[in-house]
Amino acid sequence: MSEWLDAVKWDAQGLVPAIAQDAATGEILMVAWMNREALEETARTGRGVYFSRSRGKLWRKGEESGHFQNVSEIRLDCDSDVVLLKIEQVGGIACHTGRRSCFFQKLENGRWVTTAPVLKHPDEIYK
Amino acid sequence: MSEWLDAVKWDAQGLVPAIAQDAATGEILMVAWMNREALEETARTGRGVYFSRSRGKLWRKGEESGHFQNVSEIRLDCDSDVVLLKIEQVGGIACHTGRRSCFFQKLENGRWVTTAPVLKHPDEIYK
Repeated sequence: MSEWLDAVKWDAQGLVPAIAQDAATGEILMVAWMNREALEETARTGRGVYFSRSRGKLWRKGEESGHFQNVSEIRLDCDSDVVLLKIEQVGGIACHTGRRSCFFQKLENGRWVTTAPVLKHPDEIYK
Repeated sequence: MSEWLDAVKWDAQGLVPAIAQDAATGEILMVAWMNREALEETARTGRGVYFSRSRGKLWRKGEESGHFQNVSEIRLDCDSDVVLLKIEQVGGIACHTGRRSCFFQKLENGRWVTTAPVLKHPDEIYK
C-alpha cells in the first residue's frame, strides 16, 4: 500500500520539497516541505498538507487561513526527490503575505522588485 | 552590486533550490540547486547555471547535452529561499532521461506511472 511512499527519496531530515502549481493557469504558487506523513495525507484527502520545519509538525495548509488547497494531481521528478502538486488554491491566496503567489520578487536591473499586490492583509487572514 | 545575492537565504550548504519553468507554457521542467556563483552567472549570462551536488561543481546546463536554457526571468519566493526561473529550453528536453520535463511520474491509484515519452535516448544526448 505504501510502496509509492518508499519510492520517494526523502532527505536526511526525512523531507522533500513540494511545489504547488495552479492546475488551471500553471502559475507556481508556493514551495514547501513534505515528510512521509504529509504526502500520505495529501494523497488520501486531496488537500495540501506540508511539514512545517519552523514548527516541527504537520501543516494542513488552510487550517488557520481557510486557504485550503484542493490537489488534483501529484507528480514526482526523475530523481524522486521533488514533488509537484497541481492544485486549486481556495481563496486565491497561497502566500502568507496575503499575495496570490509566493514568487512575487522579480530580479530587475540587479534588484528584487515586488511585482504582486497584497490581496488581503495577513492580520485579516490569520486572526 | 551583489546586494541582491545577499538577499537570498542560502542554506547551510550555501544552496537554494531553483525551479525551471517553461516561460511560454508554464510547464515545470526541472528543479536543481544553485549556489551564489551559479545564480550570479545565470543572471549575468541569461543561461541556466546550477550547482551539481553530486559532482560538487558548477553545472552549466547544456554544456554536455547542448540543451541550454535561455533565462528570461528570475524570481525569488517570500522567504527568499527558493528561486524560480522562466526559461526557454533549447532542444525541448530538460530531463537527463531524454524527456521534456523531469516530472513525468504521476501518482495514479497508489502507483507512480510514467506519463511522458523519451524524446531522445540519453546515449544520443550525452556522447
